[in-house]
Amino acid sequence: MAILSEVATEVLIPLAAAVGIAFAVAQWVLVSRVKLAPSSGRDKDVLAESLIEEEEGLNDHNVVVRCAEIQCAIAEGATSFLFTEYRYVGAFMCVFAAVIFVFLGSVDGFSTQSRPCAYSEGKQCKPALFNAVFSTVAFLLGAATSVVSGFLGMKVATYANARTTLEARKGVGRAFVTAFRSGAVMGFLLASSGLLVLYVAINLFKLYYGDDWEGLFESITGYGLGGSSMALFGRVGGGIYTKAADVGADLVGKVERNIPEDDPRNPAVIADNVGDNVGDIAGMGSDLFGSYAESSCAALVVASISSFGVSHDFTGMCYPLLVSSVGIVVCLVTTLFATDFFEIKDVKQIEPALKKQLIISTALMTAGIALITWLALPANFTIFNFGEQKEVSNWGLFLCVAIGLWAGLIIGYVTEYYTSNAYSPVQDVADACRTGAATNVIFGLALGYKSVIIPIFSIAVGIYVSFTVAAMYGIAVAALGMLSTIATGLSIDAYGPISDNAGGIAEMAGMSHRIRERTDALDAAGNTTAAIGKGFAIGSAALVSLALFGAFVSRAGVKVVDVLSPKVIIGLVTGAMLPYWFSAMTMKSVGRAALEMVEEVRRQFATIPGLMEGTGKPDYARCVKISTDASIRQMVPPGALVMLTPLVVGTLLGVHTLAGVLAGALVSGVQVAISASNTGGAWDNAKKYIEAGASEHARSLGPKGSDCHKAAVIGDTIGDPLKDTSGPSLNILIKLMAVESLVFAPFFAAHGGILFKLF
Amino acid sequence: MAILSEVATEVLIPLAAAVGIAFAVAQWVLVSRVKLAPSSGRDKDVLAESLIEEEEGLNDHNVVVRCAEIQCAIAEGATSFLFTEYRYVGAFMCVFAAVIFVFLGSVDGFSTQSRPCAYSEGKQCKPALFNAVFSTVAFLLGAATSVVSGFLGMKVATYANARTTLEARKGVGRAFVTAFRSGAVMGFLLASSGLLVLYVAINLFKLYYGDDWEGLFESITGYGLGGSSMALFGRVGGGIYTKAADVGADLVGKVERNIPEDDPRNPAVIADNVGDNVGDIAGMGSDLFGSYAESSCAALVVASISSFGVSHDFTGMCYPLLVSSVGIVVCLVTTLFATDFFEIKDVKQIEPALKKQLIISTALMTAGIALITWLALPANFTIFNFGEQKEVSNWGLFLCVAIGLWAGLIIGYVTEYYTSNAYSPVQDVADACRTGAATNVIFGLALGYKSVIIPIFSIAVGIYVSFTVAAMYGIAVAALGMLSTIATGLSIDAYGPISDNAGGIAEMAGMSHRIRERTDALDAAGNTTAAIGKGFAIGSAALVSLALFGAFVSRAGVKVVDVLSPKVIIGLVTGAMLPYWFSAMTMKSVGRAALEMVEEVRRQFATIPGLMEGTGKPDYARCVKISTDASIRQMVPPGALVMLTPLVVGTLLGVHTLAGVLAGALVSGVQVAISASNTGGAWDNAKKYIEAGASEHARSLGPKGSDCHKAAVIGDTIGDPLKDTSGPSLNILIKLMAVESLVFAPFFAAHGGILFKLF
Repeated sequence: MAILSEVATEVLIPLAAAVGIAFAVAQWVLVSRVKLAPSSGRDKDVLAESLIEEEEGLNDHNVVVRCAEIQCAIAEGATSFLFTEYRYVGAFMCVFAAVIFVFLGSVDGFSTQSRPCAYSEGKQCKPALFNAVFSTVAFLLGAATSVVSGFLGMKVATYANARTTLEARKGVGRAFVTAFRSGAVMGFLLASSGLLVLYVAINLFKLYYGDDWEGLFESITGYGLGGSSMALFGRVGGGIYTKAADVGADLVGKVERNIPEDDPRNPAVIADNVGDNVGDIAGMGSDLFGSYAESSCAALVVASISSFGVSHDFTGMCYPLLVSSVGIVVCLVTTLFATDFFEIKDVKQIEPALKKQLIISTALMTAGIALITWLALPANFTIFNFGEQKEVSNWGLFLCVAIGLWAGLIIGYVTEYYTSNAYSPVQDVADACRTGAATNVIFGLALGYKSVIIPIFSIAVGIYVSFTVAAMYGIAVAALGMLSTIATGLSIDAYGPISDNAGGIAEMAGMSHRIRERTDALDAAGNTTAAIGKGFAIGSAALVSLALFGAFVSRAGVKVVDVLSPKVIIGLVTGAMLPYWFSAMTMKSVGRAALEMVEEVRRQFATIPGLMEGTGKPDYARCVKISTDASIRQMVPPGALVMLTPLVVGTLLGVHTLAGVLAGALVSGVQVAISASNTGGAWDNAKKYIEAGASEHARSLGPKGSDCHKAAVIGDTIGDPLKDTSGPSLNILIKLMAVESLVFAPFFAAHGGILFKLF
Repeated sequence: MAILSEVATEVLIPLAAAVGIAFAVAQWVLVSRVKLAPSSGRDKDVLAESLIEEEEGLNDHNVVVRCAEIQCAIAEGATSFLFTEYRYVGAFMCVFAAVIFVFLGSVDGFSTQSRPCAYSEGKQCKPALFNAVFSTVAFLLGAATSVVSGFLGMKVATYANARTTLEARKGVGRAFVTAFRSGAVMGFLLASSGLLVLYVAINLFKLYYGDDWEGLFESITGYGLGGSSMALFGRVGGGIYTKAADVGADLVGKVERNIPEDDPRNPAVIADNVGDNVGDIAGMGSDLFGSYAESSCAALVVASISSFGVSHDFTGMCYPLLVSSVGIVVCLVTTLFATDFFEIKDVKQIEPALKKQLIISTALMTAGIALITWLALPANFTIFNFGEQKEVSNWGLFLCVAIGLWAGLIIGYVTEYYTSNAYSPVQDVADACRTGAATNVIFGLALGYKSVIIPIFSIAVGIYVSFTVAAMYGIAVAALGMLSTIATGLSIDAYGPISDNAGGIAEMAGMSHRIRERTDALDAAGNTTAAIGKGFAIGSAALVSLALFGAFVSRAGVKVVDVLSPKVIIGLVTGAMLPYWFSAMTMKSVGRAALEMVEEVRRQFATIPGLMEGTGKPDYARCVKISTDASIRQMVPPGALVMLTPLVVGTLLGVHTLAGVLAGALVSGVQVAISASNTGGAWDNAKKYIEAGASEHARSLGPKGSDCHKAAVIGDTIGDPLKDTSGPSLNILIKLMAVESLVFAPFFAAHGGILFKLF
């Protein structure tokens, strides 16, 4: 059948994961060469290479010591937040694991008898009780992998931020490489460990399941649920943390006290920098890991009831994992383009270098997908398509993966167009500041609404092609295609907050204006790429949740989800409402937490003598604590909404209404998420556009402190919760509800819809 | 069968319409008794009755003359705008009428041969060519009725505004009655003429169609399309007009020049007052007329293929019209409660009096529906339900109408809770102004998102019950139930802008502070009821478009709209995007038009000598012209988007994708519309809350001109396009696309989906 033998598959996947981990370690070693201690002789040798650019403050021991101190404070704050978060979330995970066990175990009344398979007629499958056990184990495994990934990412980021600042003294190129390498540590660690754990779990579960692949891969979906549940709390909690600190710091510092961003006199400044690490690094990492785990699980569960599963073709079954394996290798090569093949000599080269990463990885990956599709798949096979088997060719499937990959690139570029201040949309928003904050906000909202058009068309085309070619399996592998360059995507994403932190540390350590300019340039490029990353995350979330939705519907035995039935249409309408409910909660949470922070910062400015003059020392720890407490407290209601909705709807109203809810939440959530992210990004960059004053037009709006700039700051502050809390959390809302429905599908199919049964 | 004979039905409907029109004329006569000329002897006699409250300025001839002048300027501006608008829209209507004729005529290749009926097997129906002719005629009739209704409403409003101001000199009760009666003129005129024209059209069309009721009521749907197309341009054009003027006037007047609202020195002040009449009166009138016409058509077209139509039961067929007839009588009685049975003696009684209108009309109407259901319907009948006939009882249908009626009331009250400053949500938003405009905006957006929850649940319950009981006919009559008290709803709606204008005229005519306080109280109550009216409009739009969607699907011969098919899901995703695209267009239009206005107002302040001092006279006409030109120009792209989407999708991608688009636009549009309207309303009232300073808390945020108040003004300005342009226009987007699809359904079913046929 396929060219690649089963043994080769068994070797290739862990090998790719191992290579990825080794590469991450190598990058970490390179970053660790930058010493966070006053320079020694050896350090000077290294410098000899880089005398192209002027170097500054290299011998200022004091600065290095301060940087180390600040880094320490940030790392401590981030670690303490994550530990607190993990403690609460851990407790929740245990409870939810019990829920999974009880619900799934009760499908067959906790019977230990084998039962007839749901799809393979005439065959016996493992008892539902053991599926419940393995689903629970997979759930905990997914959650644990997500925790470890997020935590390590945060550790690397807080390790690298001050090192980037110090390298900035030696030139922008060296600082860029340090920040990018640190990002790569996280990107590769996460992509590789996600793949490895999933692969190991499948092989271990197989020891019990043997030939019952239907049950095996049904249980494996718990992995996606675990990863995604953690991601929910990571994104929401981290998002509230980072924005409460950011908004709080800005409202008092920039607006009331008129001191610059990241000024060490601002008591919330450490909390703000901690926020970047727990929100944008750990949160984003968990989010993309969740997407990756879910799309793999969705593809696997559909494959298990297609010809791969029915005829026990292990290489074909593992196609999704093989695509990810190739992805790791491709991203590894791509990373070398940024760190080794080319050198950044000027600040203007940063953004193109990052964007090149996306194009290179996409181009290489297209070839990689073609190769692995040719090697791993038979020329023809069948895919389960809601009750019947559909004939698919290997090149058809290549088309599905490739269209997902390229749709991601298009979404990324459209996002950039609407959020980068190099193009007219953001410049128009900046221009609207002339007539005040109100017009700035109106134009910004309109921009966000408008920015959904092309991404939605791209997603629609991707869905149509992959759905037509290979049904729900096509959608799942299209999502995987979009996520196949996840290591590069995550490297770029993590690069942003690291650079942001580096700038903050430079400001706090009182380093010179030139160094701050270099870190600002790194940061500005990171801002745009962060928006691109969010675009990717949303696009892939849409495809992933559609694939999960399809898998859920298949597993629940639903043949048709007819909009023209009352049960489905009420689900559709209420499902479309959920993103609004969820956004209301998260935005209000940020607002409330920010108000608490504002009061604390005001109190410190009022009561600590000499704070404004720089002689008194602010109480950073207290601000960190306020952000921590507020975010832990406030993440519960939105978390509960997302986790409970599928359970309540499925149990009370049944699978048809739940299918409606999932479809409604998907189609409405994608729009809200894209528009919220892009509106926020545009306001942020409109403000930066005025501040930078790089063009005639920009200077006519500035300088800092002008009325236009003040209006722009208001827009930026409004955008903060939109782009960093509610917008990106919506990805998880739509994915998580879908994967949860999939995991609980056997229960809903057996016992769901109590309310309709009663009346 | 039914108790009510065919002859009685033929008499009852036109009689109710005639009574409604007579009542409207009577109200107009009462309003016209207030003379817009210096008081004569006779006028003094009338005054003798109302000496309870202190009267002011009654003998100031100058004031009366000024009021008359200002009224004249407003009426002229409004008339000139509407004429310009109608000229352009009229040209468009002619083109679109031709499109309807060509598309529908081509269904059977312009053949004049009879053809087999689509539903009644074995019978011959009229040729498609004649359906095309009659659909076109019905379309033009609907458009004309909408134009006349909107125009007359505007005429009455501009006739009544100055009269309300003058009556305010004699006490708040008299001013209230004047404003309310004028609103009633519009409400009853519109409800009655809508019913009458529809009734006459059916009877005339029947002369040709005879027993072919399938073709007859298919053609009649053109009436809904005509009404709704006009409404689109009325809402969008009027919405852009009113908000461009409002935002422009506020940005320069209130923010930059620090002069009060409606100050005669502001050059945009007349344009602003004109805007209320063309946007909130003519636009709102067209919108609700469209909803009414569409829900009647949706119910009729489904009834025509149900047992009523098949067995030619004319009374049963006319059930939707009979419900509306009862509604007119009920609303007539309800109006008397406000104008005759009770008297307003204090400003605090205004809001309760208006709210009582809603409860009284709903309660009376419930009894009215029960009566007419009992009289007009046989105990059992069947309703067409996607290919099969469903058994329904008359009390089941009563339940459908009643649930729609009461769901409307719930939506109205929830809207009031979230937008009135008497409750905590708006007070929280006002409180967020303490930390500036950014938190105000964040809390306001969160409030809007949250306010969708209960309305959506109400709509979902309404849909579930009426769908389960009587399929799509149930939904259509539920929508009619919600709209059955349309005359009262419109009276209250029109009352608002009339009072707003009255206040503006008082300010401009330089009347005393006490009179301004009275008109402000009238206006504030109108603000809340306007929000309630918008809630009704959106809720009914959701039900109407679902009913039209069902009728479209039936007519297009689609049996199942399966979310799990690629054609439907891509429609769903892109359909859900349309409200965003549309909102982006309308908001940007308002922004651009407002910028033009700002520049003109600034120019006048800078160049006209003595303008700020009140010695120079501003050029009002130029501002009116700018608003007119901008709104005419800017309404084209959003209008084209809505009108072309169903045509393009239906022709190129076919009925399944179009069904997906309609469902997607419906479920996503409702959320955007509700949240946009309520966010805007909340910001407006948060500002008013601070300005009024009625409580300890409110005073701590004020007074006018404080930082908190400035933050609140920014929120109010952002909310303007949300609540008066993009939000309410979205109703029309979802309704119009559905009714257009229904009208063109025969064409799409015969020739649609070219793209899929080619590939």
